[in-house]
Amino acid sequence: MRKILAITAFLLSTTAAIAEPGLPEKLDASISPTEMGQWMKFLTNEPSQVSSPFNKTIADWTLAKFKSFGWDAHIEKYDVLYPTPISESVELISAKKVFKATLNEPWTKETPKPKDKWLPAYVAYQGDGDVTAPLVYVNYGMKDDYEALARMGISVKGKIVIARYGQGWRGLKPRLAQEHGAIGCLIYSDPRDDGYSVDSVYPKGPARPAGGFQRGSVQDITISSGDPLTPGFVAGPSKPRLTRETAPNILKIPTLPISYGDAKVLLASLNGQVVPPNWRGGLPITYRVGPSTATVHLAVKSDWSLKTVYDVIAKIDGSTYPDQWVIRGNHHDGWVFGATDPQAGHIAVLAEAKAIGELVKSGWKPKRTIIYTSWDGEEPGLLGSTEWAEDHADELKAKTVLYINSDTNARGFLEAAGSQDFSAFVGAAAASVTDPETKVSVDARLRAKLRLGEGRDKEEAKLAAKAAADPKAVVPIEALGTGSDYTGFLQHLGIPALDLGYGGEAIWGGIYHSIYDSYDHHARFVDPGFVYDALLAKTAGRMVLAAADSDLPLQRPKAFADSVALYVKQVKHLANEKREAAEHQAGLLKDGVFALTADPTKPSAPPRALAPVPEIDFAPLDAASDKLTVSAKAYEAALDKAGASLSQAKREKLFGVMLTIDQTLAPEDGLPGRPWYKHLIYAPGRQTGYGVKTLPAVREGIEEENWAETKTYIPVTARALLAYATRLDAATALLSEP
Amino acid sequence: MRKILAITAFLLSTTAAIAEPGLPEKLDASISPTEMGQWMKFLTNEPSQVSSPFNKTIADWTLAKFKSFGWDAHIEKYDVLYPTPISESVELISAKKVFKATLNEPWTKETPKPKDKWLPAYVAYQGDGDVTAPLVYVNYGMKDDYEALARMGISVKGKIVIARYGQGWRGLKPRLAQEHGAIGCLIYSDPRDDGYSVDSVYPKGPARPAGGFQRGSVQDITISSGDPLTPGFVAGPSKPRLTRETAPNILKIPTLPISYGDAKVLLASLNGQVVPPNWRGGLPITYRVGPSTATVHLAVKSDWSLKTVYDVIAKIDGSTYPDQWVIRGNHHDGWVFGATDPQAGHIAVLAEAKAIGELVKSGWKPKRTIIYTSWDGEEPGLLGSTEWAEDHADELKAKTVLYINSDTNARGFLEAAGSQDFSAFVGAAAASVTDPETKVSVDARLRAKLRLGEGRDKEEAKLAAKAAADPKAVVPIEALGTGSDYTGFLQHLGIPALDLGYGGEAIWGGIYHSIYDSYDHHARFVDPGFVYDALLAKTAGRMVLAAADSDLPLQRPKAFADSVALYVKQVKHLANEKREAAEHQAGLLKDGVFALTADPTKPSAPPRALAPVPEIDFAPLDAASDKLTVSAKAYEAALDKAGASLSQAKREKLFGVMLTIDQTLAPEDGLPGRPWYKHLIYAPGRQTGYGVKTLPAVREGIEEENWAETKTYIPVTARALLAYATRLDAATALLSEP
Repeated sequence: MRKILAITAFLLSTTAAIAEPGLPEKLDASISPTEMGQWMKFLTNEPSQVSSPFNKTIADWTLAKFKSFGWDAHIEKYDVLYPTPISESVELISAKKVFKATLNEPWTKETPKPKDKWLPAYVAYQGDGDVTAPLVYVNYGMKDDYEALARMGISVKGKIVIARYGQGWRGLKPRLAQEHGAIGCLIYSDPRDDGYSVDSVYPKGPARPAGGFQRGSVQDITISSGDPLTPGFVAGPSKPRLTRETAPNILKIPTLPISYGDAKVLLASLNGQVVPPNWRGGLPITYRVGPSTATVHLAVKSDWSLKTVYDVIAKIDGSTYPDQWVIRGNHHDGWVFGATDPQAGHIAVLAEAKAIGELVKSGWKPKRTIIYTSWDGEEPGLLGSTEWAEDHADELKAKTVLYINSDTNARGFLEAAGSQDFSAFVGAAAASVTDPETKVSVDARLRAKLRLGEGRDKEEAKLAAKAAADPKAVVPIEALGTGSDYTGFLQHLGIPALDLGYGGEAIWGGIYHSIYDSYDHHARFVDPGFVYDALLAKTAGRMVLAAADSDLPLQRPKAFADSVALYVKQVKHLANEKREAAEHQAGLLKDGVFALTADPTKPSAPPRALAPVPEIDFAPLDAASDKLTVSAKAYEAALDKAGASLSQAKREKLFGVMLTIDQTLAPEDGLPGRPWYKHLIYAPGRQTGYGVKTLPAVREGIEEENWAETKTYIPVTARALLAYATRLDAATALLSEP
Repeated sequence: MRKILAITAFLLSTTAAIAEPGLPEKLDASISPTEMGQWMKFLTNEPSQVSSPFNKTIADWTLAKFKSFGWDAHIEKYDVLYPTPISESVELISAKKVFKATLNEPWTKETPKPKDKWLPAYVAYQGDGDVTAPLVYVNYGMKDDYEALARMGISVKGKIVIARYGQGWRGLKPRLAQEHGAIGCLIYSDPRDDGYSVDSVYPKGPARPAGGFQRGSVQDITISSGDPLTPGFVAGPSKPRLTRETAPNILKIPTLPISYGDAKVLLASLNGQVVPPNWRGGLPITYRVGPSTATVHLAVKSDWSLKTVYDVIAKIDGSTYPDQWVIRGNHHDGWVFGATDPQAGHIAVLAEAKAIGELVKSGWKPKRTIIYTSWDGEEPGLLGSTEWAEDHADELKAKTVLYINSDTNARGFLEAAGSQDFSAFVGAAAASVTDPETKVSVDARLRAKLRLGEGRDKEEAKLAAKAAADPKAVVPIEALGTGSDYTGFLQHLGIPALDLGYGGEAIWGGIYHSIYDSYDHHARFVDPGFVYDALLAKTAGRMVLAAADSDLPLQRPKAFADSVALYVKQVKHLANEKREAAEHQAGLLKDGVFALTADPTKPSAPPRALAPVPEIDFAPLDAASDKLTVSAKAYEAALDKAGASLSQAKREKLFGVMLTIDQTLAPEDGLPGRPWYKHLIYAPGRQTGYGVKTLPAVREGIEEENWAETKTYIPVTARALLAYATRLDAATALLSEP
């Protein structure tokens, strides 16, 4: 109870105001883990992928639920390209015999026995084809792996590659294989990464059994999300569609996922060099790169007709500001039963909707309009959310205060990411909910974790650890790449967005997108008692209430300015590192160091020569980052000074100034080579897939040795930051008016 | 030919002089890889461990060989404690059945079929016993692993532990197990470390087959080497021996090595937590820490009688300075057939002895006395070399110019380590021999490798890379811990020593100390054509000739001074790091960070609190290192200026001053807690075993949080460095005399 008051007080003093203290307690009282578990049980009883019978059942059921909770709800449909498999085959053909891969997962009694057939091994938007060629093992199939292969003297041209899942997004693996001339691609899950090495396998334990594999999408989401035939516009009659052949984010080569039970046979057939140590997986074989003397026959044929996705949209109109929208969403389509992904998040959305509905029934009215959404077609390419965002683009850009997304959920720590000017807002909500395992606030537990200083980027982790140790400091949330339904809002429309979920303790990587992502698995291994699913509802629900009712803007831009300053430092450091590496390597190449150190029994070649790094003028970016820091500080100081005593009229005016400030970061022109992505601060990496690249045009220009691009986008990115800072200055001026 | 002249010129101008140019070419002409291969074939035909019939045959054969080469040779015998197994057993006892481990390696037709029985699974100087207890998996069984176990809430008290080979010396594993209360220890070789993960297994490939295991010694060599009953004195009638019970470096708990074929069954029986990711090996199981519900029965009984070791000593008297000795050695005992270890090095010694004998027959006479040795009992504890060094201590200290050791050998790069004032000497020899694979000099190939910047310590690797890139700069050789026959000379007597061998390309870790270390394995996988074994003979032979005939001292102290300066920097950095870590950790412990971040489904405890690090006064060490740098520079400048024009009388006087300079680094008192080890700059680490710790008393004091020890040994170590510098100054004064 005290903690709830604390959040209310915190929001009031630093970020936003909730009209009625006591509201979060009422919200919590309506959220029932038991009921959420029952919903999940129903929602995971049949396969729910796009175009499956149960997919439509879920949409209708969700619609009915929203209505029964008192919401004004309807379904919006889009006809989109979504391929489904007609036939598929993977065979290893040697002189002696033919080995046929099992492309279906063995059923176990712990998962439902569905009426409908579940999807076999398949990745959506692969290229179809019927190819036979020797096999090459490419490790994770990432850029570095191909550089290593080149050094080993191995080309994948005309070959079929086998890559293991992990380290980069699934879709990059066939894309890079295709770019390197491969004619087919297999992706398997190595037991070292998510099978028996990690834990006992399902159903005994949570990890991947030998017959399990990971479905997914290989649509090139780094170019755009949504229907691949309608990038940037809604899938409808307004504008002609592209074709499968002209759509830039559909693959050309056949690709299938396989199990490690089958992969073992294929990998064991490989000849050639032993792989480098970090390429070795957990199968009891000697991993070799190949090529194999036996050939692999890979055939995939799909039905490429349009299918319908069903978005469920529910609304409660705002009493004071009906044209300011707070949007909350989670998808409802799974690859098979989809317990942890997506129903764990979906039942949180439902629980929130029910709880908010009850608040309304009890007489409360949100000041702003609240929109709850249940997206379809997230799995193949964020289809439902993207088409909806494109469909309503202008209205959304004019009205949306914040989009709050969730997807998977598991026990552990709060994993919040998104628009970093909302970091304080997230921290306030996290401070107001209690972690079921440790009984401290979610914020306190997260701060404890950050203090351990673990993280991808060392300096980023260090700064986070420092902020986490000071209870008064705001901890910047992480930046977002892609991988869930926020992308259409955040990166295409520039609308501020948050992605929420708990995780970090349970093991579910091995059942992700497999038939074993079942109610049983979720209830036994991922979130026993559904307490973290309920916690997600409480956390997101608080944010929705605060965003709907706050008199003051939700943004606190200092954490964003700090993050930008760090990113600018990183890209400058990256350029220097690359320069030094290129100079060092040039010396080594000149002196034949690679030839002299090579083992003559193993074919090897010197590495690709790194391009020399020219002088790059980062001054515009430095200046913009400095200006942003100053403006953010001034704004927060002015807000803290004036905030509580501000007149209602001024609050409204201020809110109006800040409502669309985040969109200044996503000007119309977008990113080089992928204009669908507008946001100049956050984007999925071209070479990381889901993983974020901050200051993407500048950073990727350096990474990919495209100096012209870097030089062009330094001022472009700086201008966006300056536009944000200028808008802040306007807000500060407003606050400072007498 | 030009290269040979280059070395002679280099030695003349910078380090030493060889009386007769052309000598190296004559040496090379007498070294026959084919003959060396024939010798290896004979030497690996039967098991050659201490007390085996063939061990004595080898000593007699080697004696005859030396004699036939024209040397004055004899055998020196020592009766030492060397246990041999009488009976042994490892069983896994569960309710259902008893699994019995195979403690013998399966024979394959590629290895000899010996008349004599080879040693079963055994580690010398383990504790004997008959124990039954649950099993706990302790990863590599190192200090950090026990800290991780404590955090997982696992005690090994009263348990039998199973550790995998690797990361630290074998003998540490049972010692640490014993220190933590375990009552028995099994050590197995994980396939990820040296089995099928690494390459195809023997006999198809070079890696370890499922039935292979690693024998070895678990005598605590970090306390002393040699006969455990006679530390510091020769095994003979002069002084009473300790007993098995009072000898400090004999284990108390039974210990056996096992194969991964057997380990798989034991490890699969473990319950409890899944191990951390870096504890996972290559077996297709879920690795868990245990303890097991099934119990393990481990029984070992040994014959603890004295056995005889046979050192073969061969001599050619010096013509000018018979009381100045150049000593060269390699052991002749193996654990089974011992092809790569030790016969690859042993046949190099024989080839050198033959070649030098032929030089003598052709009329050449070394100025100094050359002593060639073939040690016995190296494997169980450097028995033969240590007893001989202790036996002749005073004479050796008075007369020895340099001891040059070798042991294993394989194709690849020169791996030279030892007294770092001999770095230039090593570099000169390396520049004068040609790498068979790349046809450049061994020095050029090594420099190429160093330029890649790989290595244990990042700063050390960086400095080495910088030196390697400048052909005029001396590359410091690596420091020596222990693990071969140089230890009695270098660390006990303070005599400068070098350890030489080629390696880094072939895979032989999986057959090390197994029956598969055979002629066939060596000839097919380790050194086809015996060209690197011959290269070792050419390299070491050059050094022997140069050391025997040089007019000028062999030391070039600048590389040593540079290394010491780096080590001083490292220990200061270490203290600062520990201080920061302790302060950081204290904050985390105070705030309960470890409890808040723990997964409640897994037992866990906060880490052991690090001791706060007091202020430590490193000034004496700084001052001594600075002084050493100045003195080394002055000496080299004076030598370069005066060198070539120095009178013969002055050369002799100078050589006399420098002859024993290295012994200033090893004053009588020795290291804290292990006075047998005298050297204050180089020692095997108490927690690393073979691995070196430089400035050991100071460094280990910090590592083990023993601040009193650190503070005591800073001035002690500084004094030794100053004594060295003072001796250098005397030499410089001599050089500067008119």
